[in-house]
Amino acid sequence: MRGIMQKTGKGRRATIAAIAVALAAVLLLLAACERPATSAGGRQNPETGEVRRFELITRSDTINIGDNVTFEGFTFNGTMPGPQMEVNEGDTVEITVINEDSVTHGLSIHAANAQTSNYVGNIAPGETRTLTFQADYPGVYMYHCAPGGHGIMAHTMGGQFGMMVVEPQQRYRMEEELGREPDLKVYLIQHEVYADGRDFFDGKALYVMFNGETFRYVRDPIPARPGDFVRFYYLNVGPNLTSTFHAVGGIWDDIYYGGNPNNLMHGTQSVVSGPTDSWVIDWIVPDEGPFTLVSHAFGTQAIKGAVGVLDSREDAPRIGEIRSEGLGTPPVEDPKRFVSPFGLGSDTLDVPVRYRSGDRTLIQMVGNSYYPKRAEVPVGTTVTWINEDVFDMLEGELTGKHDVVVVQADGNERFRSELLDHAETFSTTFNQPGEYEYICSIHPYMRGKITIVEQ
Amino acid sequence: MRGIMQKTGKGRRATIAAIAVALAAVLLLLAACERPATSAGGRQNPETGEVRRFELITRSDTINIGDNVTFEGFTFNGTMPGPQMEVNEGDTVEITVINEDSVTHGLSIHAANAQTSNYVGNIAPGETRTLTFQADYPGVYMYHCAPGGHGIMAHTMGGQFGMMVVEPQQRYRMEEELGREPDLKVYLIQHEVYADGRDFFDGKALYVMFNGETFRYVRDPIPARPGDFVRFYYLNVGPNLTSTFHAVGGIWDDIYYGGNPNNLMHGTQSVVSGPTDSWVIDWIVPDEGPFTLVSHAFGTQAIKGAVGVLDSREDAPRIGEIRSEGLGTPPVEDPKRFVSPFGLGSDTLDVPVRYRSGDRTLIQMVGNSYYPKRAEVPVGTTVTWINEDVFDMLEGELTGKHDVVVVQADGNERFRSELLDHAETFSTTFNQPGEYEYICSIHPYMRGKITIVEQ
Amino acid sequence: MRGIMQKTGKGRRATIAAIAVALAAVLLLLAACERPATSAGGRQNPETGEVRRFELITRSDTINIGDNVTFEGFTFNGTMPGPQMEVNEGDTVEITVINEDSVTHGLSIHAANAQTSNYVGNIAPGETRTLTFQADYPGVYMYHCAPGGHGIMAHTMGGQFGMMVVEPQQRYRMEEELGREPDLKVYLIQHEVYADGRDFFDGKALYVMFNGETFRYVRDPIPARPGDFVRFYYLNVGPNLTSTFHAVGGIWDDIYYGGNPNNLMHGTQSVVSGPTDSWVIDWIVPDEGPFTLVSHAFGTQAIKGAVGVLDSREDAPRIGEIRSEGLGTPPVEDPKRFVSPFGLGSDTLDVPVRYRSGDRTLIQMVGNSYYPKRAEVPVGTTVTWINEDVFDMLEGELTGKHDVVVVQADGNERFRSELLDHAETFSTTFNQPGEYEYICSIHPYMRGKITIVEQ
Repeated sequence: MRGIMQKTGKGRRATIAAIAVALAAVLLLLAACERPATSAGGRQNPETGEVRRFELITRSDTINIGDNVTFEGFTFNGTMPGPQMEVNEGDTVEITVINEDSVTHGLSIHAANAQTSNYVGNIAPGETRTLTFQADYPGVYMYHCAPGGHGIMAHTMGGQFGMMVVEPQQRYRMEEELGREPDLKVYLIQHEVYADGRDFFDGKALYVMFNGETFRYVRDPIPARPGDFVRFYYLNVGPNLTSTFHAVGGIWDDIYYGGNPNNLMHGTQSVVSGPTDSWVIDWIVPDEGPFTLVSHAFGTQAIKGAVGVLDSREDAPRIGEIRSEGLGTPPVEDPKRFVSPFGLGSDTLDVPVRYRSGDRTLIQMVGNSYYPKRAEVPVGTTVTWINEDVFDMLEGELTGKHDVVVVQADGNERFRSELLDHAETFSTTFNQPGEYEYICSIHPYMRGKITIVEQ
Repeated sequence: MRGIMQKTGKGRRATIAAIAVALAAVLLLLAACERPATSAGGRQNPETGEVRRFELITRSDTINIGDNVTFEGFTFNGTMPGPQMEVNEGDTVEITVINEDSVTHGLSIHAANAQTSNYVGNIAPGETRTLTFQADYPGVYMYHCAPGGHGIMAHTMGGQFGMMVVEPQQRYRMEEELGREPDLKVYLIQHEVYADGRDFFDGKALYVMFNGETFRYVRDPIPARPGDFVRFYYLNVGPNLTSTFHAVGGIWDDIYYGGNPNNLMHGTQSVVSGPTDSWVIDWIVPDEGPFTLVSHAFGTQAIKGAVGVLDSREDAPRIGEIRSEGLGTPPVEDPKRFVSPFGLGSDTLDVPVRYRSGDRTLIQMVGNSYYPKRAEVPVGTTVTWINEDVFDMLEGELTGKHDVVVVQADGNERFRSELLDHAETFSTTFNQPGEYEYICSIHPYMRGKITIVEQ
Repeated sequence: MRGIMQKTGKGRRATIAAIAVALAAVLLLLAACERPATSAGGRQNPETGEVRRFELITRSDTINIGDNVTFEGFTFNGTMPGPQMEVNEGDTVEITVINEDSVTHGLSIHAANAQTSNYVGNIAPGETRTLTFQADYPGVYMYHCAPGGHGIMAHTMGGQFGMMVVEPQQRYRMEEELGREPDLKVYLIQHEVYADGRDFFDGKALYVMFNGETFRYVRDPIPARPGDFVRFYYLNVGPNLTSTFHAVGGIWDDIYYGGNPNNLMHGTQSVVSGPTDSWVIDWIVPDEGPFTLVSHAFGTQAIKGAVGVLDSREDAPRIGEIRSEGLGTPPVEDPKRFVSPFGLGSDTLDVPVRYRSGDRTLIQMVGNSYYPKRAEVPVGTTVTWINEDVFDMLEGELTGKHDVVVVQADGNERFRSELLDHAETFSTTFNQPGEYEYICSIHPYMRGKITIVEQ
């Protein structure tokens, strides 16, 4: 089958590839100097030019996502998006995943047309695992955490994803025509942040970002010059929404679905992208002035952060590339908002719901969160938890089974429900005023709070 | 115009077609033996090789949708999805629709570029109607109930849809190159289940399924062998969400939008599909091991059931095909959940809303359901129904007009509102405690319940 | 770069272009006669055949959107969608924007691959600005209001958008093959209407329309004849949802992503379109009878208004084209519903929320609206406003900063909150019964109402 695919290309051009590899090596060195915290390694074997090694570290993390907003979730190497990896078509790629967390993680890497689950699925806390594959399919790919089963979706939403680019042997049309590499490569990941699992299920993103922050490139515009040949490596990570990437004042000259050089289309105002869809976009900056980059899904995406600016000036600095990693800045002391999809965030975000006597008090387990996360109920109320997660097969991080466990200050359990399968319920009556924080014993980062108040 | 389209193909290859037809006949016979309940017939005329006949029976149904969940809605031939139909490009297709239900049904069949509404739209209870067309456009097509107007959307959501495949005369690239048919054909429908019309309007699916059950191919993985040439006939039925079908560890070699062999693209991690979009995907299984099949819209789709496994082993059985029909298993005695988009389901799903004195008590008619379906109001409360369905033209199943009719145990009407157009309201005050179940006289499967409680 | 693009075309055919220009001129004259209220001008320079001038007037407006529903928002030239503009590839386009409103407006025109923000972004009340560009990219384009920043998204949702078509020099395949222009050109914009900014953020459209009204072409079907060569210029304006345009009984013969003649695909049941995606669709009407045109996203779109009918009869009138402008009919005296995304609409739509003592009373500022718009709270309650708009940079219409200002009947301010950045809150306690209407001083069309009631 690899033989088949190679026939659709235009043959290897070894000289050009060697130059490209050398150039990439220089860029990687520069990138490594500038961004030690977010680099995944990508050490090239100088003798063969073919083996590329990367290191991904999985962990629970609390990070700054811009504008003094703090996010609590999971990361690769401490950033959201995680480290960007670039290789050339035909390279052998070796990725080592080190799980430094106390929960199970894993890796799905879309650049591999090869078995991955057997090698880097289901990595236990403390474990290190390695995947090797040959990057035979050029394009722009997503990677994300994949412990297996239910956990794949939950961990990806929780912040663990990034981009791998496989540069083709066959040059893209405009590069061929102009006889040169792009002046500017913009690696751009669009991704969503959710306040809780209910919103994750409903596709109601709290924020939508380019490369880790709301309005990152409005605050810090991307410099370019009129006439510049710009290439976007655009990846919509989702995990839910369909975007249409557009520039105000720009028409995309050449677009390639998935980034494959054989999938060329021309002259469009947008590229439609469901979750994990990607495009290579080649475009010549037509003038001086600001060009607003935007997902044209204005209400669900742009207005929540998916806007940037490419600022074209004759004297703009030549930066060569914009990389897709999150900035990895530490959280501020006193954030304006604390976002925690699985845990308790700010109480103006995870707003307490006040139940009255006679109300049906039904708290969902959904997307590895409780919903509502904070409930206030009168003394004597029977509270029911229902598991709305559907994937109730498998065990541990791989399952959507949940329970409710209240641990007292002295470490003793106050109560523990049975483990619930999909659509099962657990009920208990609270007869004393008080405040209970509870977790799921399977996913201990899930946190809820119930306050029993006098009627 | 048919002449025009034929020119875009590469001419007919009668010998290959004849073999394919013979093969299809054998497969159909086998399929008929194994799945009598879901077969639509598809009897081929042995003399001409050209006339294909199918029978679709429309009815109200209560079925098992897996994991001990029961669904009440409409079906074709007792399954959701309904029977799969395959024909060859150029065949004459004759479909007979038998309406065994007490409400009006119909058929929209996307494989037909021909008038259909005049023949199989608006089929009255007890009526039988036939459509004949020539299948001149190769591809993967949706069909669904289409009584007309508002009913088209409501019945499709209610469970009436399926797949028709028109196999092209022109072979797909990989088939041509390898000189053989796929080793495994996977006919895969992705579809959504809704708890009520409000969620249908909001795009908030309760479950998302491949071929009729949540996680069907996780529980029962699809067997294949490394090196197998697998073809997916992927159809996103929706009716709302946009999917991106992907395999963990797989890159799609060849993809064809709509399944038309002229629409070839290469080497992508996903295929973006709005409702009724389809793709033919050709892929060689690269290794042994499990490959997770998934809609990469992780929160709105995958985590709710749109995940399966292709299990690749050297000694896997050769099954030839996976068909897209639902299993058609009868509902269990004591389901863990009862889903009824138009009627009253489980009360942990259609949760009663408790109104207080002074609250605005506004019950919507929306998507042929009441919302909330269950309301509890204090004695003396004025309850208002508002019609949020917009299509208020036409009559019967074809309209979105609604009313509220309460029939007492003795069969006498307790009250009946006027018939409401879009955005019109009806109010009444309840002065006695009690419990009222009510229906819409136009769509008697719409059911609501109101409980009048002492303050 | 323009040089590059021209090479992908097939060269200019001056004679055909001249004929097309002459024809277009005649059509434009006819169109101007029939639709003076919605015409944008489009006066062609008769000497060069190359300069096309259009006038767009921005204003606050209250219009009829069909079925006795009134909409309060913004328009171009008094209609939603605004005036349609057609030019030929290679034309010089001059667009003058006249801001007759009391708020800042602007223009983003996707047909321009040229700096636009410097010329027609941020147009102050009373100001007139002009943009000139060369229409070198054939296709079907969206235009919309673009004051800048946050205002781009809010004003587009508020009603300011339309279509520009750049007719290619290179003919579309079917036109080439048949040797004639389409018999019928259907310019079709699909667009969404929102009740408030919360629904805008959540992608929960109230209505979805073709060319300005729910079910416009169900009430007033599009006439055509069997065998007619019909071209759809289909544009999904969004601003949120992904559509799949389909005809019941039809398979699209030729489809072109973005309308670019180089992006040809064949024989599909649908065209997937995110917001601002467009397609040229060429199709031969196969028979007599009604063909239902629909977005196949049935619950989020079709059932809310995105349905029309193409009525094919041998004796149908030859109308030549369907234009995409809204009808521009004045609002009715007593509408069945008043929709005002930013202001107070009907109270059965913007339903008052009744808070109880002890409830968290949190009112969002979101998408330039308050949510809930109407609140009823007991005396002594502390009410908190929180700014959920994220774009808090820039000033005026360009920012998502908001405040709460209550002005008494005598014109004196009752109170004024500080100006809130994203996620900031303002709280105040109401100790006297009464009714307060309030606005945002930055966006004075934002309106909310709070009623203080005796416990």
